[in-house]
Amino acid sequence: MFQIDKRIENTSLLIGHVAFCQIRLVRDQRYFWLLIVPEREGLSEWHDLAEDDAAFINRLMHHCSAELKRATSATKINIGAIGNIVPMLHIHVVARQAGDPTWPEPVWGRGQATKMSLTEEAWRVAVVKDIITSFSDE
Amino acid sequence: MFQIDKRIENTSLLIGHVAFCQIRLVRDQRYFWLLIVPEREGLSEWHDLAEDDAAFINRLMHHCSAELKRATSATKINIGAIGNIVPMLHIHVVARQAGDPTWPEPVWGRGQATKMSLTEEAWRVAVVKDIITSFSDE
Repeated sequence: MFQIDKRIENTSLLIGHVAFCQIRLVRDQRYFWLLIVPEREGLSEWHDLAEDDAAFINRLMHHCSAELKRATSATKINIGAIGNIVPMLHIHVVARQAGDPTWPEPVWGRGQATKMSLTEEAWRVAVVKDIITSFSDE
Repeated sequence: MFQIDKRIENTSLLIGHVAFCQIRLVRDQRYFWLLIVPEREGLSEWHDLAEDDAAFINRLMHHCSAELKRATSATKINIGAIGNIVPMLHIHVVARQAGDPTWPEPVWGRGQATKMSLTEEAWRVAVVKDIITSFSDE
């Protein structure tokens, strides 16, 4: 049975699901940062996904990326699947703004997360819910 | 007409093509590091790809990742599309080894590339050519 990695659970909020994928919001005021976590056991590499799951997640990732960019007017979306520390497959979709705390470097392993304000969190949760609702898999 | 970004051209070797995608080897002894660069004009975000191109690149990325892992016995493959500095869409597929120079941190923006030995380069080029040849898009 799938169980979310504790480090992912402790650093992000589960906002909802699209099919078998958790859509999570990383608790970090610095960046509007999503995680896509397929609820499949034993995956660590992106290429470990079954072919149909991979095709689905590809469409879902593109949707999340495009909608996150639109909602945040991000300068650039950063996509990553790294997993050197937390091997459970999780795909990062991060909205970057020119001048954000680590711009133009990647966000991973740089500095410390800062607490989201309640206002910011409420807004981000609403945006992510819209992203989930607006996904259609034709 | 598509023209490769000079920074990508100067830091990586074009090994071959799969359909409309360049497969490049980053010139850095520290990591066996591939780039997939679609020869499409005006792309910066991964989600800028047309739907069919996105599906194709998804399959190609999974193939490159799985084959690179097999050839290098990598601890972990790191995938990324960042583009904060070089906006032209390019997807990183990096073989990581526990204990490599920046392990377990990501490779991007960490330290300086070191020159590949001729032996290492010859071997990597041969591996990448095999990865290209063995891709079949059913």
